[in-house]
Amino acid sequence: MEQIPYKIYLQENEMPRAWYNLRADMKNKPAPLLHPGTHQPMTAADLAPVFCDELIAQELDDQTAYFPIPQEINDFYKMYRPSPLVRAYCLEKALDTPAKIYYKFEGNNTSGSHKLNSAIAQAYYAKKQGLKGVTTETGAGQWGTALSMACSYFGLDCKVYMVKVSYEQKPFRREVMRTYGADVTPSPSTKTEVGRRILAEHPGTTGSLGCAISEAVEVATGTPGYRYVLGSVLNQVLLHQSIIGLETEAALKKYGITPDVIIGCAGGGSNLGGLIAPFMRDKIKGKADYRIVAVEPASCPSFTRGKYAYDFCDTGKVCPLAKMYTLGSGFIPAPNHAGGLRYHGMSSTLSQLYDDGLLEAISVPQTEVFQAAERFARVEGILPAPESSHAIKVAIDEALRCKETGEAKTIVFGLTGTGYFDMVAYEKFHDGKMSDYIPTDEELERSLKNLPVVD
Amino acid sequence: MEQIPYKIYLQENEMPRAWYNLRADMKNKPAPLLHPGTHQPMTAADLAPVFCDELIAQELDDQTAYFPIPQEINDFYKMYRPSPLVRAYCLEKALDTPAKIYYKFEGNNTSGSHKLNSAIAQAYYAKKQGLKGVTTETGAGQWGTALSMACSYFGLDCKVYMVKVSYEQKPFRREVMRTYGADVTPSPSTKTEVGRRILAEHPGTTGSLGCAISEAVEVATGTPGYRYVLGSVLNQVLLHQSIIGLETEAALKKYGITPDVIIGCAGGGSNLGGLIAPFMRDKIKGKADYRIVAVEPASCPSFTRGKYAYDFCDTGKVCPLAKMYTLGSGFIPAPNHAGGLRYHGMSSTLSQLYDDGLLEAISVPQTEVFQAAERFARVEGILPAPESSHAIKVAIDEALRCKETGEAKTIVFGLTGTGYFDMVAYEKFHDGKMSDYIPTDEELERSLKNLPVVD
Repeated sequence: MEQIPYKIYLQENEMPRAWYNLRADMKNKPAPLLHPGTHQPMTAADLAPVFCDELIAQELDDQTAYFPIPQEINDFYKMYRPSPLVRAYCLEKALDTPAKIYYKFEGNNTSGSHKLNSAIAQAYYAKKQGLKGVTTETGAGQWGTALSMACSYFGLDCKVYMVKVSYEQKPFRREVMRTYGADVTPSPSTKTEVGRRILAEHPGTTGSLGCAISEAVEVATGTPGYRYVLGSVLNQVLLHQSIIGLETEAALKKYGITPDVIIGCAGGGSNLGGLIAPFMRDKIKGKADYRIVAVEPASCPSFTRGKYAYDFCDTGKVCPLAKMYTLGSGFIPAPNHAGGLRYHGMSSTLSQLYDDGLLEAISVPQTEVFQAAERFARVEGILPAPESSHAIKVAIDEALRCKETGEAKTIVFGLTGTGYFDMVAYEKFHDGKMSDYIPTDEELERSLKNLPVVD
Repeated sequence: MEQIPYKIYLQENEMPRAWYNLRADMKNKPAPLLHPGTHQPMTAADLAPVFCDELIAQELDDQTAYFPIPQEINDFYKMYRPSPLVRAYCLEKALDTPAKIYYKFEGNNTSGSHKLNSAIAQAYYAKKQGLKGVTTETGAGQWGTALSMACSYFGLDCKVYMVKVSYEQKPFRREVMRTYGADVTPSPSTKTEVGRRILAEHPGTTGSLGCAISEAVEVATGTPGYRYVLGSVLNQVLLHQSIIGLETEAALKKYGITPDVIIGCAGGGSNLGGLIAPFMRDKIKGKADYRIVAVEPASCPSFTRGKYAYDFCDTGKVCPLAKMYTLGSGFIPAPNHAGGLRYHGMSSTLSQLYDDGLLEAISVPQTEVFQAAERFARVEGILPAPESSHAIKVAIDEALRCKETGEAKTIVFGLTGTGYFDMVAYEKFHDGKMSDYIPTDEELERSLKNLPVVD
């Protein structure tokens, strides 16, 4: 048996040629998006003013298993993919565990995360449709950066509404987007009706993701030649992110490795949904019996403490309803929360899988997440994003359990990105200023009591 | 002929097993370091209080061509090496040039640059000697970060003296170092005699690299079990950095590619010296006739406007004298200079090669460097460090000349690192606040008039 290298890189000709649509193989399909007014399933026509046509087709299709990746996107993928599947020899040694740990590292591109996998696809379809540009929102800035890069590559205009507090506290993220030619506006702004209304009602507000979404959608639907794009939660995004799982599967097969447990962090679910897609397929088909684990922050525990119900996708309640594990569309994690993954809901595909018992979920407090991040950084060399570190935390715990039991399990986790722009959070951690506030039952009850009533 | 992939990765078993010491093959050897007091060549005994023993042996050896890379260092290299040799298909297309452009990308590690290649070697030898820790200085923070990572890996204490203005303006770099457990002190500090003296003489000073060096050396020589380490200029550093050139050579050979021109940015010379080492060997031996080009900032033009003479390696004039192209040890680039590469001198090896006519040098103004950086980022996806962008600028110019002449030259350049922590400089550029100040002849004359007199 060949020695497994520290980093497994596929050859270009081994890269996946099609995305995989897990919904096609799900026995219980995810529930459809509903129109926020009529509560009827959203049609392509309903979505056309907001999204690009081909992306709508992908969004609504739960039958087609494979979508060929267009050549132009493949060419772009080749600039930063295949991403390495890394054997964490140094971490194993430091933990003194018999477990074999692998991670799929998506951070080796300038956006710093997996978000680029979908951004380039969405930009491509916008360009193909002859659009002039796209709009989006961004919080911490990973998605905005990825989209800026993708739009720059295809010569599309890119308008990013960035939550004001991030815009001011993360000037470097903003400058990266400007380097890629994006037009970045702090939200709420006076450029939109909804922005002006919010500014009038809440002077001095520092903004929220929900508000930025509303502004981006307003601009997209009100400007000829523009559409709105989104970096997570949607089926189309999970489809594009399946490249992560497909590459992981190919790399494992190349060396005859069978995972026992697959671990990913979960915010809106795009990384996790992409990583696990082919493994979940085999599990659904009874070909394999992997444990598949979603890790979420204890401060934003949609899987572990949320409700499986129809809810608004946005705080402003203008977007469609999705059936998902949700904390209520008004839920906002405590201000001290530094670890990303702050979306109130969860991809409807992952929600259905969780409801079907095919997926486990676990929530972890943020101080332990940063402890795991630092431990990992010191031996594996990579400074992980706080989001990714949720998966690290659970992978380390699993490996330490193996040490106790003597089992040589094979653990695979997704390392979604790097933390270069998250040093404020690391600083908090180093200075002992991080808290582990967890919402009380009363708080969650309150935020869940106004879910829309859907028959 | 096989299609050349976007990224050429060597297999682990194709990685170099030894560093290459170019001095062994140079006909005119670089001049020796001289004792600052006696002006006699520095001996191992002279250097022992400051540097680790094995590093001193490497420093002084201009006869041994190959130094085997210890297994522990090889294992660490495997975490982030081999680095990819990238075929810049997208840049070629954007420039519409018949030239073939390749770049060796050293930025895919958390230190963000090639500095880690030598940091891990220096930390290893310190550990092997049974030392407790090392001290160093850092300006922008690339070297300090790399050394922190390396020390963390081997469990060594790491004391970094960081130029105060950088410490305050680059808190994120500081936090990365803290993540790796380093003790970071803004310089000048009250921890050292020299720091206290400088603070008394210049209250409110924001520090300089020269001062930080002096503090780090004082602490290293005054603390039992500590030595001082340096990230550029020295022969030992060029030796370790030869891994860049050796990998590049192997990757090119694997695909039967022969470069016409090899381009690297030059500050102290560690990246350039490493990149060109095996190519210069073949050139010296008459086996190949590459053009080899050093690119430096017009605001700190040691090759193109400096003098080849013995000078102090540090501003504080406590370190040995090196024969090198220098602007005078008191030279400091204009405050507006944002592009790195601010050392007043140049590695003695590269200086000798330049004096022998084996190496070309060109200086470029910083606005053009940032224009090239942005152009590159938009098509190749990587956000380059300002330092690296000097090489990009000249590679693009070369490719555009090929477009005019119709020549399909093969251009190889070194992309030393990423610019994630340089967004203040990018912001200046975006806001049109960058100047291209170039020192006048009178300024250079003034700074060169006090060179030490060596018989």
